[in-house]
Amino acid sequence: MTQCSSIPTVLLMAFRFEIIKKDSFFKARLGRVETDHGSFTTPTFLPVGTQGSVKSLTPEELAEIGVEAILGNAYHLYLRPGHETIGRLGGLHAFTRWERPILTDSGGFQIFSLGSLRKVSEEGVTFQSHLDGSSHFLTPEKVLEIQRVLGTDIAMVLDECVPYPSPYEYVKASADQTGRWAKRCLKVRQDRDPALFAIVQGGIYRDLREKSAQTLVEMGFQGYAIGGLSVGEPKSMMLDVLKWVSPLLPENCPRYLMGVGTPEDMIHAVILGVDFFDCVLPTRNARNGTLFTSSGKISIKQAQYAEDPRPVDETCDCYTCRHYSRAYLRHLYLCKEILSSRLNTIHNLYYYIEFFRTMKEAIQEGRLLDFYESHTSAQGLEPEGPVHFQSN
Amino acid sequence: MTQCSSIPTVLLMAFRFEIIKKDSFFKARLGRVETDHGSFTTPTFLPVGTQGSVKSLTPEELAEIGVEAILGNAYHLYLRPGHETIGRLGGLHAFTRWERPILTDSGGFQIFSLGSLRKVSEEGVTFQSHLDGSSHFLTPEKVLEIQRVLGTDIAMVLDECVPYPSPYEYVKASADQTGRWAKRCLKVRQDRDPALFAIVQGGIYRDLREKSAQTLVEMGFQGYAIGGLSVGEPKSMMLDVLKWVSPLLPENCPRYLMGVGTPEDMIHAVILGVDFFDCVLPTRNARNGTLFTSSGKISIKQAQYAEDPRPVDETCDCYTCRHYSRAYLRHLYLCKEILSSRLNTIHNLYYYIEFFRTMKEAIQEGRLLDFYESHTSAQGLEPEGPVHFQSN
Repeated sequence: MTQCSSIPTVLLMAFRFEIIKKDSFFKARLGRVETDHGSFTTPTFLPVGTQGSVKSLTPEELAEIGVEAILGNAYHLYLRPGHETIGRLGGLHAFTRWERPILTDSGGFQIFSLGSLRKVSEEGVTFQSHLDGSSHFLTPEKVLEIQRVLGTDIAMVLDECVPYPSPYEYVKASADQTGRWAKRCLKVRQDRDPALFAIVQGGIYRDLREKSAQTLVEMGFQGYAIGGLSVGEPKSMMLDVLKWVSPLLPENCPRYLMGVGTPEDMIHAVILGVDFFDCVLPTRNARNGTLFTSSGKISIKQAQYAEDPRPVDETCDCYTCRHYSRAYLRHLYLCKEILSSRLNTIHNLYYYIEFFRTMKEAIQEGRLLDFYESHTSAQGLEPEGPVHFQSN
Repeated sequence: MTQCSSIPTVLLMAFRFEIIKKDSFFKARLGRVETDHGSFTTPTFLPVGTQGSVKSLTPEELAEIGVEAILGNAYHLYLRPGHETIGRLGGLHAFTRWERPILTDSGGFQIFSLGSLRKVSEEGVTFQSHLDGSSHFLTPEKVLEIQRVLGTDIAMVLDECVPYPSPYEYVKASADQTGRWAKRCLKVRQDRDPALFAIVQGGIYRDLREKSAQTLVEMGFQGYAIGGLSVGEPKSMMLDVLKWVSPLLPENCPRYLMGVGTPEDMIHAVILGVDFFDCVLPTRNARNGTLFTSSGKISIKQAQYAEDPRPVDETCDCYTCRHYSRAYLRHLYLCKEILSSRLNTIHNLYYYIEFFRTMKEAIQEGRLLDFYESHTSAQGLEPEGPVHFQSN
């Protein structure tokens, strides 16, 4: 087993990342992550359970869908119900009854997108809660402490997220700050701490991205995230950033593209060597009535489905498709029935999980390019072709 | 088997009501209803699935809770998605996947509470849809046709519901109208029609209630509902109406108290001979965070539950109580998570179903008075005593 090169000086929770297979043509790889709460294979998609609930579903349903690990959010759980409350109730796994691996985002993104009257200093960040306007001060050390108390399996360092577009000097100062904060997180690690992932920042500036990646890799983390993407930049820029950063990250550590994305975005990123993904897209789209299918997205509210007895996707084996018609799902959506959100979420998450399952098979069998081309063709999309992926 | 005295001249769907046991002291009885979609025992509580969904739950979950039959609403389903749409999709059972018995309310109550610009004539009622303001004209015949097309097991006649309080002359005219409409429903029955229940009206006026009951009983229906209650009148009046009406209804037909109510209301009504109940209370309360327990209702949002690791009710075996803490349920409620509505609804419906299960046991074992007294005592309520029930 190839273990990540960062050898911790404290006895962390179990965390191993093993590469099972590398693609011979692309940078894609199959991996396996082991944690105290079980293992999962990569590339993987982590459904978003921001507030301790993947919206509308129970842990049993997530497991039935095939979800192996989920995402929580330290910022949200710190504000409500409070990480110490969750800690006293046995930690986030016991609190939510999701007994498999959890990765928690530090909340950097939320502090910079939801918090108001934000003030960043060398020491940390002051902001007002989006819930009640109360004032809070978070440091890198405190953010790790929150995740430690939550009992997460994988913690993220505190980072500063900059909006797109932002001027070079601001992005540079911010990426440097994120680097210094990451170092402080490393220094306060304790026995039984979760695995710790750093977050590469640097906006759309190649030198800043490269410097951020190099600085963090020198410090030695158990995994590396690429943050600050999918914030409004053109898609080609996101791929450029991945092409700059991915080769600089240690091959034997997992790479995590935060907040991304569509199935097509994720294939691109997998081809460029990314292992972890999270995104609200499948769950949020579900609640808005947009459903993924093997032949493209559909909007279930459309009149054409009013008397359509077929399932959302005739090739899908999810609970929703095995049991309900498009006509009933449309009716539930138009009536704003809670069951609509549930059934749609089950379907979209199943679609994502199945998408990753078949993508992993394709990597295993050395036919990732075929997978990419048949996916884009079935979705009616224009494939960008392998040339695109070789261009750097 | 004692079958209801009304022998239809057309071949209706299977519907039998058998009385298994009568209480020796009260008018309460244990019964059994058989329909084309299975049988259930009475007294029974029908969860409300107005728009083809018991809010937030799947049919599998309802069955696991122990629900035997549910309520649908002809008015709502006529307006959206349209009864003909549901008919073309195989009927309400196939559309919703609830394969057990369904009783549909005619929508009289909704036309008079939700519809605007309402105009009643001898022929029927004109109203504007609460959804889009479109104009509709419904007759007693049309309302039966809607329920026939839905494929319900038990249909209700079109009735006019009067608000409380209303003047005698208005209530009298309205109850007479409801009687004439009921007669028209009877005349247009067809082979394979659902069982048809009439609705006793007459407000809080004894002579009108008695006349309504007698008129309808003479026509001969398969069951009799008591409508127009729980519309704001004092609780003692509701019991008075039941005491006037119940003795006039044929013993071998089911009696249905529409839209009622709290567990205490329902014990009173069972003691007075009622067999069917429906009410939004357990499901609506659940979504508002009010949970029934063996020692009284609790509001899950209260701060006292913030770190309470106990289940909602330590004596409850529902999925929610077997798995989740009050602290987590409070958190989900405060976060407005969809899972909150689900878990709370499962608990409250289980409470209702379990309440009926133990009440039926008490009737079976001839200890209904003990059941009533121990229930009111555990809930911290003042029992009104059996004298109350004997007073008429």
